[in-house]
Amino acid sequence: MSTIAETKIEADPNVPIIRMTREFAGTPEQLFRAHTDPKLFAQWIGPSSLETRIEEWDARSGGSWRFVSTRDGEEHAFRGCFHEVRPDRIVQTFTYEGDPDGVALETLWFEDLGNGRTRLRTQSLVDSFEGRDAWLKSGMEIGVNEGYAKLEEMLADGTV
Amino acid sequence: MSTIAETKIEADPNVPIIRMTREFAGTPEQLFRAHTDPKLFAQWIGPSSLETRIEEWDARSGGSWRFVSTRDGEEHAFRGCFHEVRPDRIVQTFTYEGDPDGVALETLWFEDLGNGRTRLRTQSLVDSFEGRDAWLKSGMEIGVNEGYAKLEEMLADGTV
Repeated sequence: MSTIAETKIEADPNVPIIRMTREFAGTPEQLFRAHTDPKLFAQWIGPSSLETRIEEWDARSGGSWRFVSTRDGEEHAFRGCFHEVRPDRIVQTFTYEGDPDGVALETLWFEDLGNGRTRLRTQSLVDSFEGRDAWLKSGMEIGVNEGYAKLEEMLADGTV
Repeated sequence: MSTIAETKIEADPNVPIIRMTREFAGTPEQLFRAHTDPKLFAQWIGPSSLETRIEEWDARSGGSWRFVSTRDGEEHAFRGCFHEVRPDRIVQTFTYEGDPDGVALETLWFEDLGNGRTRLRTQSLVDSFEGRDAWLKSGMEIGVNEGYAKLEEMLADGTV
């Protein structure tokens, strides 16, 4: 495991947004690939205890996606559409199907730091502070950190 | 013209959302059709002084859309993806291509009031109050009200 730092997770004080920042030992092209290639994405997203099965994946502006996370036969599904997919930015919607009326608008930026390093910044916007804060208290940082640790390993061993 | 009331347009005091409400003399099914059938949508959306040309339209969950508004050869394009399309609710993203980094998450609800009447409620969520307030000050209510007046006429004359 080559985790240099945990993910910085911040709740915006003025708008119902969660922001995350983490640096990776990979180029923006590699980070983009890890987020758009369904085979790569399925290998790192989410907590280590879950397996991810991609059900639908069309990573282009106007496309859509759906995946199912499984653990001991228990299934949790997530879906959304890709508003924009471009090398430096992905904008997509996100719904956990267990809470079908909840929708987040997510933006990911891949910032080139030079020397083969990239800063990943993400922003998740929802329509209420209650919804945002419930998500923050759900333990989501475990899945975020375990997922990004897997991604770091995949960058280190040449999988991405 | 059968405008009974103007659209109620409200800026949320706590989150960067614009909410709109308007009642129509039409069923939820008619309102849904007016928002999902591209030929009908092109006839009413936007200010009276503009023509709308649909370039892309796949009104289902995971589909996408793009249209161009023209006036005297001047063109303005808009695009997004449909996160969810269901009889009582549409969730979609919205970008004006003249401001390509700006993205709104829009939700529309069709509420059955009985007696062939429907309350349309909409919500546009963006990631800053500055962006939201700039849009409110842009004169957007003219296009909104002129568009909905056209939709009322189309409901009254049987076009929808």
